[in-house]
Amino acid sequence: MTNTMSAGALGAPVEAVNIGLEMFAESLRTSAVEVTSVGWRPSPAEVQGALDTIAPHLGRVRAANDIVVERLQSAEPRLVDVLVAREAIDGLGERTFLHAGPPVDWADMCGPLRGAVIGAIMFEGLADDPEAAEAMAARGEVDFAPCHEHGAVGPMAGVVSPSMPMWVVDDAVHGTRGLCTLNEGLGKTLRHGAYDEGVLTRLAWMRDVLGPAVQATVRGLSAPLDLRGLAAGALQMGDECHNRLRASTSLLLRELLPVMLEIDHPREAVIEAARFMNSNDHFGLNPIMAGAKATADAARDVPGSSIVTAMARNGTEFGMRLSGTGDRWFTGPAGVIDGLFLPGYGPEDANPDIGDSTITETVGLGAFAMAAAPAIVKFIGGRASEASLATLAMYDATWSESRSYQLAVLDFRGTPLGIDALEVVHSGVLPIINTGIAGRVAGTGQVGAGLTKPPMGAFTDAVTALAATFA
Amino acid sequence: MTNTMSAGALGAPVEAVNIGLEMFAESLRTSAVEVTSVGWRPSPAEVQGALDTIAPHLGRVRAANDIVVERLQSAEPRLVDVLVAREAIDGLGERTFLHAGPPVDWADMCGPLRGAVIGAIMFEGLADDPEAAEAMAARGEVDFAPCHEHGAVGPMAGVVSPSMPMWVVDDAVHGTRGLCTLNEGLGKTLRHGAYDEGVLTRLAWMRDVLGPAVQATVRGLSAPLDLRGLAAGALQMGDECHNRLRASTSLLLRELLPVMLEIDHPREAVIEAARFMNSNDHFGLNPIMAGAKATADAARDVPGSSIVTAMARNGTEFGMRLSGTGDRWFTGPAGVIDGLFLPGYGPEDANPDIGDSTITETVGLGAFAMAAAPAIVKFIGGRASEASLATLAMYDATWSESRSYQLAVLDFRGTPLGIDALEVVHSGVLPIINTGIAGRVAGTGQVGAGLTKPPMGAFTDAVTALAATFA
Repeated sequence: MTNTMSAGALGAPVEAVNIGLEMFAESLRTSAVEVTSVGWRPSPAEVQGALDTIAPHLGRVRAANDIVVERLQSAEPRLVDVLVAREAIDGLGERTFLHAGPPVDWADMCGPLRGAVIGAIMFEGLADDPEAAEAMAARGEVDFAPCHEHGAVGPMAGVVSPSMPMWVVDDAVHGTRGLCTLNEGLGKTLRHGAYDEGVLTRLAWMRDVLGPAVQATVRGLSAPLDLRGLAAGALQMGDECHNRLRASTSLLLRELLPVMLEIDHPREAVIEAARFMNSNDHFGLNPIMAGAKATADAARDVPGSSIVTAMARNGTEFGMRLSGTGDRWFTGPAGVIDGLFLPGYGPEDANPDIGDSTITETVGLGAFAMAAAPAIVKFIGGRASEASLATLAMYDATWSESRSYQLAVLDFRGTPLGIDALEVVHSGVLPIINTGIAGRVAGTGQVGAGLTKPPMGAFTDAVTALAATFA
Repeated sequence: MTNTMSAGALGAPVEAVNIGLEMFAESLRTSAVEVTSVGWRPSPAEVQGALDTIAPHLGRVRAANDIVVERLQSAEPRLVDVLVAREAIDGLGERTFLHAGPPVDWADMCGPLRGAVIGAIMFEGLADDPEAAEAMAARGEVDFAPCHEHGAVGPMAGVVSPSMPMWVVDDAVHGTRGLCTLNEGLGKTLRHGAYDEGVLTRLAWMRDVLGPAVQATVRGLSAPLDLRGLAAGALQMGDECHNRLRASTSLLLRELLPVMLEIDHPREAVIEAARFMNSNDHFGLNPIMAGAKATADAARDVPGSSIVTAMARNGTEFGMRLSGTGDRWFTGPAGVIDGLFLPGYGPEDANPDIGDSTITETVGLGAFAMAAAPAIVKFIGGRASEASLATLAMYDATWSESRSYQLAVLDFRGTPLGIDALEVVHSGVLPIINTGIAGRVAGTGQVGAGLTKPPMGAFTDAVTALAATFA
């Protein structure tokens, strides 16, 4: 489809032709910059009763949302440690495997999540081959739970098993903690559902060499590393902190590498760890996700609030939580991703949307900060000049604007902050999500990256549940 | 003044009010995006005869310019070593002091250049106090020469003395070499004309500790460091590589710090060096300048070419060279800088334009790449949304567009490349320069940063001299 927009900053009015990403076209249609006005969409009929119930209480909703967003603004996530999961997570059973997204049983797990579970079972030494691991899972001999229910987040499949090292991020302001595993790199990785020998060998090396080296490094920092400042700086350096992380990773390495020169730790391990971290421009994603989790958890459980505190996908379903409705998940089918594929792959190879990395959008980063990262289109597709439009559209789905996450190209306007389920239902503007694409067949790995959106049904269900709290 | 422009990418037509930087307003007036057309300015009358002389030979000029710009495109500047100046520069006398810009005698030197010379004389142990150093210089007991005439470039005052360590950058494609000292940090520094105890102590530490540590590191790289790739990457990360260098510095440190873990060099020196480099987000400027010098020197001496191969300022005069007129300098008064001042300083404290760092604009970086770096306005002033306009205006002053230096926000259009003196004279569009501001009184140091432009007279003189080569 074709949209016309004026584009003074690019020299002359241009015809904005969408060359691949329907999501960008959608943001054009629904954002404030569009030339052809579409007006508000009517709210979905099934939610009209809920909206009528909430209407007399909007003052309370507003006050609650202000509290929630102030918590998102004031959180100070700081990197304090690296611990293996069994140390970091209270009561994590030796046969418990955490995963991304809302709860899901083995029978309903998608290919890449099954692949990651198979790999993690072998990594923990509970099975010797994929068939045995799969049989264990199918017989119910291992337990599953969402990362989000244990203070953690996991990119893509998001599988966490007891021996995996995790970033530990504390928000001392609100007393919350966020956890996330260390990034394995791109391509064939457990988080994309691959479980071959190379994946398992790397996981063992991460447990035995990388984890202890990074732990010693983080413990050697002169002060806990300010992840809000790091992300804010990275937004001035072309990252949106979800799919483009070259600056975040660089700033993280500028903190860690000098400490590695000084710590008392086996030299060869430190050198190997430094090389590994430095070879992967996504290495900074995981501590940022842990920081986002600590931030979002600070915003939980404010009665009456319509602000989203979690969005996550398990590859089968998208799930979300509102601050005003506690721990309850509202779900719908995981979205199809519109993007770019790695050589040899196409849409038929793609699994639906998967991963907890939408915690970045939940705190005003990721696709919400895309104006900061025009170069991301080399990774996810579309035209660079449309990146700002994606951000601008999100102001119609959010309660406020970030004080610390500023967009230079918009003259330092704050990123859209605090996804408001009521605004989403009213405006029809669904949150945009930047994400990787996992192969749908277990064992494949990453096949691409792109944009997607969550199902509206999850938002209408959430609003309906919020209305019930006022009844 | 107020300019109106359409600004679709920012959401709606906006009133672009210039809040401080006349240079931005100027780029609005002269760039292709302006709403009120100003047309071509008439060429200055004094150059009309020269243009008439050149007119029949424009085919030769074009062919020569294509050759020159192809050399700028194809240069591959790589960081190969660190050497002290007396080793790096053939025949550099022990009492020779190199400086930024075109040739200048002591009598005509501005305050900050005199301050830097005084400091360098003391640093070399030729005088014990500023008065003695100044007297030596005034009596002609030391020699001066432009950096540019010895294969080097220097930021701000640009003073190079025999004991200073320098980055060594080779372009193996064209057999050129560029040199530049190591960056001292911001504030009170020799390059800004300060020469107090702190400045001299740091210079001695740079000679004794930093230089050898960085030398060992560069020699420990598995391959010479690709500075074109580094700058191209930094442009996708919010740098323009002249006044905003946080990404360049980060990418440089990602290359150097891991090597520092491995080299056989005194550990305490390595740790001190790493801390120093990491504390200064301008540390990456100097190797980029050395690489730009190697690149620009590859483009020298093509008969008939109207492309600029050097722009440099000594704080009194601006000077430039054309490829088609060899080593001759064309000069005019150094410009006044429009920008932001550090606390306690104002325009009355500012020295006119100074430094060789305009070598970055000469190769398509710096102000020419400002669209990549909207956050730079925090340092130089103006509105972030105007950064792209500065770049767009420069397409009217240049022969081509860089293949490697791409601007994501302009959908990966190459930066304006190859300043063409004929186009400058025709269009009246003078090159924009990003620069620091030195205090005009010797000893002060840096007082701010901003934008300026060179004198048109240098360009009309250059075109007149080029015409004489066709006579």
